[in-house]
Amino acid sequence: MNRLRNTCLKISLGLLVLFLWLLLPLAADEGMWPYNLVPKDYLAKKYNFKVTDEWLNHLRLASIRFGGASASFVSPDGLVLTNHHVGRGAIQNLSTAERNLIKTGFYARTRDEELKCPGVELWVLQEIEDVTDKVLSAEKPGMSPQEVAAARQKVIAEIEKEASEKTGLRCTVVTLYSGGMYNLYKYKTYNDVRLVFAPEEEIAFFGGDPDNFTYPRYDLDIALFRVYENGQPLKTQHYLKWATTGVKEGDLVFCSGNPGSTGRMLTYDQLLFLRDVSYPFTIANYKRRQALLHEYAKKSPEHERIALNTIFGIENSLKATVGYQSGLLDKDLMAKKLAEEQKIRRAIEANPALAKEYGQAWEEIAQAQKEYASFFKPYMFFERAQAFNTVYFNIARTLVRLATEKDKPNDQRLREFREANLAAVRRSLLSPAPIYDDFEIYKLADSLKQLREELPDLMETRWILGGKSCEEVAKELVTGTKLKDLEIRKKYIEGGLEAIYQSDDPMIKLALLVDPISRGLRQRYEKNVEAVEVKNGTLIARALFKLKGTSIPPDATGTLRLSFGVVKGYVENGRKIPYKTDFAGLYERAKKFNFQPPYSLPERYLQRKSALNLKTPLNFVATVDSIGGNSGSPVVNRKGEFVGVLFDGNIQSLPTRFVYEDKISRSVMVDAQGIIEALIKIYDAKSLADELLGRK
Amino acid sequence: MNRLRNTCLKISLGLLVLFLWLLLPLAADEGMWPYNLVPKDYLAKKYNFKVTDEWLNHLRLASIRFGGASASFVSPDGLVLTNHHVGRGAIQNLSTAERNLIKTGFYARTRDEELKCPGVELWVLQEIEDVTDKVLSAEKPGMSPQEVAAARQKVIAEIEKEASEKTGLRCTVVTLYSGGMYNLYKYKTYNDVRLVFAPEEEIAFFGGDPDNFTYPRYDLDIALFRVYENGQPLKTQHYLKWATTGVKEGDLVFCSGNPGSTGRMLTYDQLLFLRDVSYPFTIANYKRRQALLHEYAKKSPEHERIALNTIFGIENSLKATVGYQSGLLDKDLMAKKLAEEQKIRRAIEANPALAKEYGQAWEEIAQAQKEYASFFKPYMFFERAQAFNTVYFNIARTLVRLATEKDKPNDQRLREFREANLAAVRRSLLSPAPIYDDFEIYKLADSLKQLREELPDLMETRWILGGKSCEEVAKELVTGTKLKDLEIRKKYIEGGLEAIYQSDDPMIKLALLVDPISRGLRQRYEKNVEAVEVKNGTLIARALFKLKGTSIPPDATGTLRLSFGVVKGYVENGRKIPYKTDFAGLYERAKKFNFQPPYSLPERYLQRKSALNLKTPLNFVATVDSIGGNSGSPVVNRKGEFVGVLFDGNIQSLPTRFVYEDKISRSVMVDAQGIIEALIKIYDAKSLADELLGRK
Repeated sequence: MNRLRNTCLKISLGLLVLFLWLLLPLAADEGMWPYNLVPKDYLAKKYNFKVTDEWLNHLRLASIRFGGASASFVSPDGLVLTNHHVGRGAIQNLSTAERNLIKTGFYARTRDEELKCPGVELWVLQEIEDVTDKVLSAEKPGMSPQEVAAARQKVIAEIEKEASEKTGLRCTVVTLYSGGMYNLYKYKTYNDVRLVFAPEEEIAFFGGDPDNFTYPRYDLDIALFRVYENGQPLKTQHYLKWATTGVKEGDLVFCSGNPGSTGRMLTYDQLLFLRDVSYPFTIANYKRRQALLHEYAKKSPEHERIALNTIFGIENSLKATVGYQSGLLDKDLMAKKLAEEQKIRRAIEANPALAKEYGQAWEEIAQAQKEYASFFKPYMFFERAQAFNTVYFNIARTLVRLATEKDKPNDQRLREFREANLAAVRRSLLSPAPIYDDFEIYKLADSLKQLREELPDLMETRWILGGKSCEEVAKELVTGTKLKDLEIRKKYIEGGLEAIYQSDDPMIKLALLVDPISRGLRQRYEKNVEAVEVKNGTLIARALFKLKGTSIPPDATGTLRLSFGVVKGYVENGRKIPYKTDFAGLYERAKKFNFQPPYSLPERYLQRKSALNLKTPLNFVATVDSIGGNSGSPVVNRKGEFVGVLFDGNIQSLPTRFVYEDKISRSVMVDAQGIIEALIKIYDAKSLADELLGRK
Repeated sequence: MNRLRNTCLKISLGLLVLFLWLLLPLAADEGMWPYNLVPKDYLAKKYNFKVTDEWLNHLRLASIRFGGASASFVSPDGLVLTNHHVGRGAIQNLSTAERNLIKTGFYARTRDEELKCPGVELWVLQEIEDVTDKVLSAEKPGMSPQEVAAARQKVIAEIEKEASEKTGLRCTVVTLYSGGMYNLYKYKTYNDVRLVFAPEEEIAFFGGDPDNFTYPRYDLDIALFRVYENGQPLKTQHYLKWATTGVKEGDLVFCSGNPGSTGRMLTYDQLLFLRDVSYPFTIANYKRRQALLHEYAKKSPEHERIALNTIFGIENSLKATVGYQSGLLDKDLMAKKLAEEQKIRRAIEANPALAKEYGQAWEEIAQAQKEYASFFKPYMFFERAQAFNTVYFNIARTLVRLATEKDKPNDQRLREFREANLAAVRRSLLSPAPIYDDFEIYKLADSLKQLREELPDLMETRWILGGKSCEEVAKELVTGTKLKDLEIRKKYIEGGLEAIYQSDDPMIKLALLVDPISRGLRQRYEKNVEAVEVKNGTLIARALFKLKGTSIPPDATGTLRLSFGVVKGYVENGRKIPYKTDFAGLYERAKKFNFQPPYSLPERYLQRKSALNLKTPLNFVATVDSIGGNSGSPVVNRKGEFVGVLFDGNIQSLPTRFVYEDKISRSVMVDAQGIIEALIKIYDAKSLADELLGRK
């Protein structure tokens, strides 16, 4: 009797907890919302802002996916604004030893001077279609997680192929809520993209790595491109008008971009995996490469020019990952996550029906983490190509896999080689971006060294390295490959598996050698980890749906999202941080560091200082929810006018990868007014400013 | 005018030559004839022998394909007679260190004692169907040789698959006349085969390698097996009755078996390729392995037991190949082949219509030989697995390729993995034949050494061998693999590509490593050599058809053929060689060599000598056309009665691979009477003799 009463009591307590938890308000302005799930009621209620379809569609069609990041149309003539660090690769690829556009900046005074960027492709989201029912209908009772995953992938491949063929658009199914929802995204793509304007890196990335992910900031982190279609500038009605008045504290603003990934719905065990296995590995790896490339860059200015873009990327990722990890190392944050999860689990366990349906989900995910940890290292080194740090390997592997996959039925291919993605794969293979063999040997030699250090006993390691030094092997591979030549790549694309098998290109042979083990590890990951996570993630999401509907935002997935918040300063260690910075602050900070790198300024900033209105805002912060991938996102006011471009988050924003927070976490923008001021006063780019301001 | 007249004159001369050449009679009793092309008129005319369908069908259904060689049913209870050297592998697999059946021989006095032979499969040809039109209809105008080959392969795969499914038989399309004719062969297969009787190797292979391919011979090269079906001896009406009277000189006899391959229709350039590229390589390789394995066998009696079967095979092949090569090195033979070819070519060139259709065929084949020579060595080492001389590699490669191929559409698979062959592939993979690791390491180490000597600069060679000794590598591979375990093999068969990719078995990894280069070389061979040879071989065959119909026999293709000739002695270097030998001769020859190996005799032959009728014929020769693969072929008289079993050809018969000859070239048989005499007098096997003689 006692035991029974106890149980009853537990259940009542559990339901009570569940009930209370449901009553908790949605955490503030949390959420990077898919365009079809924007919380209109919340915005209406909290901000008295009515989201119309017209407003939403216009912003969506003016938003651009630029590589893994974001951008927007800012003129009716196809002008595109993004961050300098988003366009950095494209700018680097237009540079040579004689013409270092990263260092000098660039401005095309006429359209004829605009520089075509090889390999750059922009995507604009045309339509979202809910295909959840179609995808979920693939699941039949009694299927294993692996079978469910395979069945869903088959349906997804069919949907993508059919939609791509029907619309001519790039169609891809996006998995939301860990598989609780599937949406088909249809993109228009643009391949003729030309550089219009880039400032000097000194001002675009003022403060360098030390100031990255901090605030206050003073960066003109912008670049302007133009989309061409049929050799003419793209005419578009969907572009953002420039705001005539600047933002002020308390203003509601919106951010439209492509946040890469968040982990707010991850279970506690998934967080532990990141904290204890994945991030330590990644961080150590970034640090190693950072040190390595700085050594390389020291050799000469040309070495520095070649390495700098890669160093930039590594340091940016390193700082971000360290920031994410800081959240996971924060005992309070983890305790909060655990408590939240236990609350849900207890509520579910207290109800036998719910317990039966959802109770096992967390434990199964926990088991999958253990399995993942058991092969994480070889998975990173082989399938994720950690061991082969050279673009040549990426090209060779893509050629090898393209040849293998394209002969298979669409739904049985590796995801990245599905019909809907093939055109993009081919274009990426034919990118004429420059490759510097000396640099490739240097990187590859070290990653091979890492392979030898970490997985010395694997047969593949011993085969590749034999008794030789990693430098020797790297040199032989890089000097032996002919993959720099686009015509050769074309021949492999056309020749298919036969050309691949008959190849004596050492890089192709290396890609072939490691393909079986890589695929084996990928299968283990996809079947024993990913499929289990998706299956159980779906269960957890369904449980949450039952409790909350779609009032909780899905985790970021690298696809277009709308977030919102207010322009707002914050208090850090008792010190008040104002919401904006200005040009005056820029000069002060440079002076404080004696104008020494990374606080040096381009010559013209010193010459033109007196021409500037030093009070013009340069950067500002807002509480809009964002994460890596949002770089380049336009930020607009209630009228949908461009008020700034997101380029960073402060260091306190990084742990929001896992838990939303808005007291001290901020997104950092370049202010629209600062952009115009610089273009006119510093760069003599009045016609460009006029185009932005709509003054022709 | 002069030039024109000249041309006319040439044409007339050409046609005249062609005409004369057509009048030449068909060369004597030449031909290993497919059962549907037996030259009945010729037999009727020359031998006054009427071939009835009943006679032919009975002989066909009593004939058996045993591995790559031949056998026949010799009792209504499924008794099968073949050569000891054909059944050698099966007998070896039943042997252990304690029970060496190769050495001691074996006789099952009761059915219970008959020993089941793992992995042995016998085929009996049920039906031949002409599918030439179907296959040739795949060719469309304007196709390249490669496209024609692919189109034909597709049709062939469909035909095989459909017929296999329809009949439940093992159906395979045989290419005759270099692609001039395609026939569908349908086999019934038997997998429960048990050893009934084997003599001691000393008498089965009396004279050993020195006497192999010579005559006079004194060998009891026989072994008897029994086919079971559903656990019971197979009841069959199609078996050969034992001849009650022996053969005598001049008797017409027939041989029904599976000659492997001949090259009588090869062009002169193909012969040059064999003479200058292929045979020198093969002979050197056999010699190397012969010496190597003799070294191994010397280590201990158990080493000898393990190695002897392989040594036997190598020495047999070596002697045969040296014999074939002796033909190609014979200037007269080559001059004759060249003259014949030039005669045809001149005739064709003299006629513009014929010249246009067939004129290029020889030159294109010549070019293909040059191409083949350019990659022959790596092709042998990788695709033909010369570099990996261990059964483990064969198993691993078959597992890897089975997994890869079975996911492909039937017609796109490597030929040996087509639907019709899959059951046999699976059975071969699960053969429990014993494997001796020490022996495998020994063989593999040397073949790796060969690889290092011959192709040291290939990336694959360096990967596999690294800085290590070949012995180390071989040891690591063989001791590391788990493929000896049949359960493990089963798991790979069932697990498919996923199990293969996730495998950490070093032999599987090796097979994966060399698969791309091997497939690349195979593609080069199939497309640039084989397809060109088939296309142009077909053209040449068509030209010959126009001139001669099917009165010329097609080259051997390892399929069932009927040949005929007369029992006949010959003159060698002025010395008359009688058509038969007897037991008396056996003892004389043994004595001449002091009964020392390989002229030693089993103990019981010394003890029972007095019981024997020493005049009983032991071996005899006839002019029947044969080649390797005919071993074990039954030889019958006009009544279709069994008079002997073919087990060899004399050394002069080897060049008939390329040119038929019947003056001194002879096939060598064990005489039916000698078999009975030995069974009764030496082996106390009266009940077995009674079964053969039909006296129950």
